Amino acid sequence: MTMRVEVVERVLRANDALAEEVRAALDAAGVLALNLIGSPGSGKTAVLERTAALLRPRLRLGVIEGDIATTRDAERLARCGVPAVQIETRLVGNACHLDAHLVRTALTRLALTDLDVLAIENVGNLVCPAAYYLGEHLRVVVASVPEGDDKPWKYPSTFARADAVIVNKIDLLPFTNFSMETFAEGLRQVTQAPLFALSASTGDGLNPWIEWIAGQPRGHRS
Amino acid sequence: MTMRVEVVERVLRANDALAEEVRAALDAAGVLALNLIGSPGSGKTAVLERTAALLRPRLRLGVIEGDIATTRDAERLARCGVPAVQIETRLVGNACHLDAHLVRTALTRLALTDLDVLAIENVGNLVCPAAYYLGEHLRVVVASVPEGDDKPWKYPSTFARADAVIVNKIDLLPFTNFSMETFAEGLRQVTQAPLFALSASTGDGLNPWIEWIAGQPRGHRS
Repeated sequence: MTMRVEVVERVLRANDALAEEVRAALDAAGVLALNLIGSPGSGKTAVLERTAALLRPRLRLGVIEGDIATTRDAERLARCGVPAVQIETRLVGNACHLDAHLVRTALTRLALTDLDVLAIENVGNLVCPAAYYLGEHLRVVVASVPEGDDKPWKYPSTFARADAVIVNKIDLLPFTNFSMETFAEGLRQVTQAPLFALSASTGDGLNPWIEWIAGQPRGHRS
Repeated sequence: MTMRVEVVERVLRANDALAEEVRAALDAAGVLALNLIGSPGSGKTAVLERTAALLRPRLRLGVIEGDIATTRDAERLARCGVPAVQIETRLVGNACHLDAHLVRTALTRLALTDLDVLAIENVGNLVCPAAYYLGEHLRVVVASVPEGDDKPWKYPSTFARADAVIVNKIDLLPFTNFSMETFAEGLRQVTQAPLFALSASTGDGLNPWIEWIAGQPRGHRS
């Protein structure tokens, strides 16, 4: 068990060193990086599709997509005119999260100088990605209405490290017993991060989220 | 990296040895054990609430609940009159999955001779739980309509190991673009396991799932 812990710590230290390289490259290029973490099907890709369209007049978005298998998500973003690189973790042992090494490799396929904001969509998993720093400036947790309002209580360590939280799929509120008050109460137990309730499907509620991104400083801040 | 792989293999071997102990205890007691794996909010607990009520005249259900934090799910089942034990993995390093050691410990708090079926609800995570055998007889993957119909393609190794697959929340079909044909097509790429489309919320579609459980042999089969 001790050995297991030592190996995990060594892996995390090696990851952090690579993440600092990623961060330096982003800062040098003046690119703001977001790490999006959420359950499978919480709607991370759909949020990015809307975000790209709404940021476009002001800010250029690029995306790194993390999935166990398929290049579907990168293709979805590319169809929206967004530079997108897919990481398939089935090629590295079905990894349940992105790590800084994977992100650093993906970065070589993006022209950072053509971007203002880089969104890194992590593997669909509300647990493991939270342990790995990727060099991002801000961490965004994406939850959704049908997942239920108990999630901040049940996954406190993930929500505690969020710089912003999205509750997606508010268009489904009338058809579920989800209480936004209950969700927010759970969230406030672990963080004061802003909460954005929106629907990537209908487009409702997107503006405060877009303004939050646009209001963040970019680059040369390490 | 080699060292990391060696440690992981050693952990999995130790897990499998404990899982065989769990399996032997279940078989000796004539208890059928199901390992339920699914994303956060796919509705695993709601499915178990319905299942307990519908099995009750014929079969006695007990539950082991796995969550990172809170005893909410075990309390929900206990309110339905189901013997339920909660494992909180925040007490063991926020583990992202159950392992055989945790299940073996939880088993000491259940009277197996009073049960016919034991449902082990894994931590909400569509990736990591698939790698850990818990001594179960059957593995059930629980997906849900709002998660999207692309999940079998994106998480093939999890679905490939399923003995049955549930698509929950079919009451939300009219409000999403989920295609059951698309989901089933993805599923058939990796498994011929039966697919049960149901709604734990309304109760629709539960009967084939209940009959599938009731039709499984129990005990003394190792």
